[in-house]
Amino acid sequence: MTRDPNEIPHAKGRPMTSRIPDDTPLRIGSLLFEGLDQIDLTGPFEVLSRLPNSTYRIYARTRDAVKDIAGLRLSPDGTLADAPPLDLLHIPGGFGQEALMDDEEVLGWIRAQAAGARCVFSVCTGALLCGAAGLLVGRRATTHWASFHLLPFFGATPVNQRVVTDGNMVFAAGVTAGIDGALRVAADLRGNDAAQAIQLHMAYAPEPPFDSGTPESAPPPILEHATRAVREITARREQTARRVAARLGVVLPAGM
Amino acid sequence: MTRDPNEIPHAKGRPMTSRIPDDTPLRIGSLLFEGLDQIDLTGPFEVLSRLPNSTYRIYARTRDAVKDIAGLRLSPDGTLADAPPLDLLHIPGGFGQEALMDDEEVLGWIRAQAAGARCVFSVCTGALLCGAAGLLVGRRATTHWASFHLLPFFGATPVNQRVVTDGNMVFAAGVTAGIDGALRVAADLRGNDAAQAIQLHMAYAPEPPFDSGTPESAPPPILEHATRAVREITARREQTARRVAARLGVVLPAGM
Repeated sequence: MTRDPNEIPHAKGRPMTSRIPDDTPLRIGSLLFEGLDQIDLTGPFEVLSRLPNSTYRIYARTRDAVKDIAGLRLSPDGTLADAPPLDLLHIPGGFGQEALMDDEEVLGWIRAQAAGARCVFSVCTGALLCGAAGLLVGRRATTHWASFHLLPFFGATPVNQRVVTDGNMVFAAGVTAGIDGALRVAADLRGNDAAQAIQLHMAYAPEPPFDSGTPESAPPPILEHATRAVREITARREQTARRVAARLGVVLPAGM
Repeated sequence: MTRDPNEIPHAKGRPMTSRIPDDTPLRIGSLLFEGLDQIDLTGPFEVLSRLPNSTYRIYARTRDAVKDIAGLRLSPDGTLADAPPLDLLHIPGGFGQEALMDDEEVLGWIRAQAAGARCVFSVCTGALLCGAAGLLVGRRATTHWASFHLLPFFGATPVNQRVVTDGNMVFAAGVTAGIDGALRVAADLRGNDAAQAIQLHMAYAPEPPFDSGTPESAPPPILEHATRAVREITARREQTARRVAARLGVVLPAGM
């Protein structure tokens, strides 16, 4: 058996898409919305804006600046209507995602772009937005640990990995997982050399000072406190997810 | 010997500052400028905007939106003159830093804020900006690998670590090192529990798909290509650094 030279040896799952020839330009676009978690967007932007022969633009409902959950002000490059057909559609998450879960303008845009895209890449609770657009039915997927149990409402099978690929979709788990997911997407689209060059420019050789980045590794009192802190938003998300499940006709597993 | 419960066991260097009582509010501020590398700012923002009892604001010369090196549009919360005395001053880097190396308005602001701050935290070539403001003389410091050799021009001793602390200054190396540095700063200011809770919310359990994040680990052809790509900007930076060295009266090591 010969190995694809662009296959990542220790990456899990099958390659998301075949490598694109270097002389084929790539159009990359992110959805921006009020109340996103900014690094869900800025992490992947840092990686994918460095891809050779590509353009990366940010799209929102209006041209106004939006604030992220913590107040960072980001501006789009254009409105949803301004976006050309994208090769790579990126959907970030954050508490503000909740307000878009029944927003047919945004969901319709996601659905239409996804239909033509080579790759749809969600980060964090961006997966739930993709789910509300109907893109998760029958998929393996992941999202932020606090919303992981909600994935079946969207017809998806939850997979507890940092990056999950299924067909032309790539799901990064919570927040900073978007950096790892984007490097994976970069390698799939433009080859391992391009991704490794980006990693070097970004000096991405992480050294977290603690081992507290997952529910499995965090000290139990820290996890308990963090879970309590998001209990209300998680409860609201579950209500929304149930409504979406009914709309999509998802058959829920027993006990949900 | 008793151990400080807030000391990070495996973090290098001595603690940057003593922990601040939880009921003492913290004012955190970043410098924003045209041509910054956005994740030098957005990485630390993601961490430090979650610190309890603190405010995080972004300051720039004017209130206009700026573009990062790859075109991301970010807006400040106020001008330099609007900034109150900051407890934590954060200085990002990026190619646009070059244009500020002789800008007395910006350098004077950095100098004045640094004089009263509990902590000055630079990311990437933000260290060179701090250096142009005269803050690096006699310090141990680090910066992006491509500019690491320039630190002696600012009177600093280069230390090849991802995060370097010296007195009330914390230096994160290239780009994404700002996330690790910010978690270290968070722990120093508000204790290990606060930093670990932030790490869990951010799901920061990185899994880079390659080992290419440092000059030492990157495949040699990738390093060679990346070094060539920044050769011109590095040469310009060296000219600027020599000019700053003369202005500061830095005695250069033999051969520089």
